Amino acid sequence: MMNDLRSEILEFGKRARTASRLLARAGTQQKNQALLAMADELLAQSASILSANARDVEKATGDHLSKAMIDRLRLTPKRVHAMAEGIRQVASLDDPVGKVISEWSRPNGLRISKVRVPIGVIGIIYESRPDVTSDAAVLCTKTGNATVLRGGSESIHSNIAIAEFLQSGATAAGLPADSIILIPTTEREAVKYMAQMDKYIDLIVPRGGHALIEAVVSHARMPVIKHSHGVCIVYVDKDADLEMAERIVVNAKTQRPGVCNAIETLLVHHEIAPLFLKKIADALGPKKVELRADNDAFSELSTLNYELLRRASDEDWTTEYLDLILAVRVVDGIDDAIDHVETHGSHHSDCIVTESAASAEKFLSEVDSATVYWNASTRFTDGAEFGFGAEIGISTDKLHARGPMALEELTTYKYIIRGDGQVREG
Amino acid sequence: MMNDLRSEILEFGKRARTASRLLARAGTQQKNQALLAMADELLAQSASILSANARDVEKATGDHLSKAMIDRLRLTPKRVHAMAEGIRQVASLDDPVGKVISEWSRPNGLRISKVRVPIGVIGIIYESRPDVTSDAAVLCTKTGNATVLRGGSESIHSNIAIAEFLQSGATAAGLPADSIILIPTTEREAVKYMAQMDKYIDLIVPRGGHALIEAVVSHARMPVIKHSHGVCIVYVDKDADLEMAERIVVNAKTQRPGVCNAIETLLVHHEIAPLFLKKIADALGPKKVELRADNDAFSELSTLNYELLRRASDEDWTTEYLDLILAVRVVDGIDDAIDHVETHGSHHSDCIVTESAASAEKFLSEVDSATVYWNASTRFTDGAEFGFGAEIGISTDKLHARGPMALEELTTYKYIIRGDGQVREG
Repeated sequence: MMNDLRSEILEFGKRARTASRLLARAGTQQKNQALLAMADELLAQSASILSANARDVEKATGDHLSKAMIDRLRLTPKRVHAMAEGIRQVASLDDPVGKVISEWSRPNGLRISKVRVPIGVIGIIYESRPDVTSDAAVLCTKTGNATVLRGGSESIHSNIAIAEFLQSGATAAGLPADSIILIPTTEREAVKYMAQMDKYIDLIVPRGGHALIEAVVSHARMPVIKHSHGVCIVYVDKDADLEMAERIVVNAKTQRPGVCNAIETLLVHHEIAPLFLKKIADALGPKKVELRADNDAFSELSTLNYELLRRASDEDWTTEYLDLILAVRVVDGIDDAIDHVETHGSHHSDCIVTESAASAEKFLSEVDSATVYWNASTRFTDGAEFGFGAEIGISTDKLHARGPMALEELTTYKYIIRGDGQVREG
Repeated sequence: MMNDLRSEILEFGKRARTASRLLARAGTQQKNQALLAMADELLAQSASILSANARDVEKATGDHLSKAMIDRLRLTPKRVHAMAEGIRQVASLDDPVGKVISEWSRPNGLRISKVRVPIGVIGIIYESRPDVTSDAAVLCTKTGNATVLRGGSESIHSNIAIAEFLQSGATAAGLPADSIILIPTTEREAVKYMAQMDKYIDLIVPRGGHALIEAVVSHARMPVIKHSHGVCIVYVDKDADLEMAERIVVNAKTQRPGVCNAIETLLVHHEIAPLFLKKIADALGPKKVELRADNDAFSELSTLNYELLRRASDEDWTTEYLDLILAVRVVDGIDDAIDHVETHGSHHSDCIVTESAASAEKFLSEVDSATVYWNASTRFTDGAEFGFGAEIGISTDKLHARGPMALEELTTYKYIIRGDGQVREG
């Protein structure tokens, strides 16, 4: 039985590899035609997608999944419409494939061009939200990559339906149906077999919680670009404009607490701590934000009778709450702050608020995170906010793609060398 | 005992991580001073290095290692001098760290800069040649990365000596000694423990044979950039200049057969096969190149009484001989040739020889290899030949670094965002 599943997954990989070779040769126009056909197909088959989704929602309800999870799972005519609109937007973006990154000649006359090409076959492993099926497959198609998708078991019927109609769109434009393959099983072992299949999958992108990421990382033989958690931090310096600092902290914590670029920790310079903690307590109290404070911050905040106040434990400094909770620490100065960020942060998005250019440049230079901010909310770490037009997610890894991962990061390059008979002497 | 080794390796990793934070802040001038001090130190301690090397050579001789292996292992005053010269050359190269890759502003006033930064800690795992110890450590120092080195057991004493004097150079310029750490044990398990240590090592580069690469890939939790084998191929098209084709094939096969960018397979278009196989037999016969031929090529070559002739078996198409052996196949045309390259090649360096621009462009576009050549020897796949000044090796992977891997590929990037209080609304 296990061996059957393994062979089945291998067979999917092999088909994706074959499709990827054809897909890599498809021109921009043909790929865009396929995308537009996919959008049309999703809209035309909306009823069928919604009925598959209703089965998933019914099962999730019976299984007593949380209301938040069922909300993320549920599709509506409006959401299907948004998926189709998203696809049309990707069709309108520039195709990075074929772009010449750089080009030079050598003294021996060889002409070298470094050119963007598709990666090949990309495996995407994700949890529950069915619209990721469409987002991921479409971005990969645009960049000439075949996709092997493995979604969460809760949305299996929705995913199968969406993938089927995306495939119809692909074949309508003459692309191979196997350009987009959805693994149609909910068995956990499937993730392991995908991760071992480096012969057929060039890159795996896991998006999800710790257990999913760990399952992929511990088995993967091919490159993995993790879209993992964010423990983002704002440091309010002694030279901060405190009004601005308040605005940034409130935005980064409360505007959408359930996302990876929201902050989990606030560091405050001791010289302005009494003043700033008062301000921020007044702002966060009415928004029902629980504060988990180190000793110094706790003294200040308890004097202010802050209602939702607890003492921070060690693990608070490394926890992604994804909720209205904020860890607060008073630091000795900028070196202490940088040390905290480097030691406890997740290197996702971190910010200094200060009017001192020298302090800002020190922080920007010494904090080794994917995105480092001076006087702006960490919530801007996002493909659309960067102006990338679309994103496959936010990479929390350092290599190949770091931070918002868009079309360009779904390509690699090759060197093309044109000569007239050169051979090597030395 | 095993747990002791594991803790020891973990401790090395931790020290490298700490050093990497200081090293990342070092300016170009300080890093160059360190490199020049390393070169001076290697020369000053030449006697001590040669005496450590003599111990390795004595052991290797006693263990009856091949003459070729002992040659690779042996250091001479001239080789130590060349190592020092190599270091001085790296000091003279441009430092990629701090370079702005791109920069733009958003409508809300945010200024985004994408800036090159060190990767952090790089693990290098390699076999036998002691000069790799110096090459790898020096390129990593230049780019602000700490290095954890694990060399072959045959050269352990040479490696320990070289690493010690490189460290002295680093500290003389005020860089931390732990910027360069050599794992001083020959136990095999050390590779596994390094590969599992994703908390402290950001990237592992294995350079070596199949068993070494497999040990790293199967255990690694961090990104791996393999420097693996090359099954490079030349396709001689029907429209080839046959004199040029002969020159290229002879060069790519015989100029230095033991390296990864030498060719292992020759594909010949059937229309010119009788003529070209005669030419190439005349050229390769005197050089004692064994030919392993498919049926069609075998008929031709046996008519010519080619001396070192065998029938090719299936595995000849995927074997890296690293020797004066060449697999030869007659193909139906360019599609057949491309199909062979994509199916059996290693996607390292492949070449078409033709006077037809249309056929050339088809081959250059459809062959998905790190380097694809039109009318030039595959032997040019090399950092120095590309004009990169130095290389850590040739990546046979697709992500982050593909083909010659030089200073730029030893860096990553981060986004620096400067604002004036922007918060996100939607």
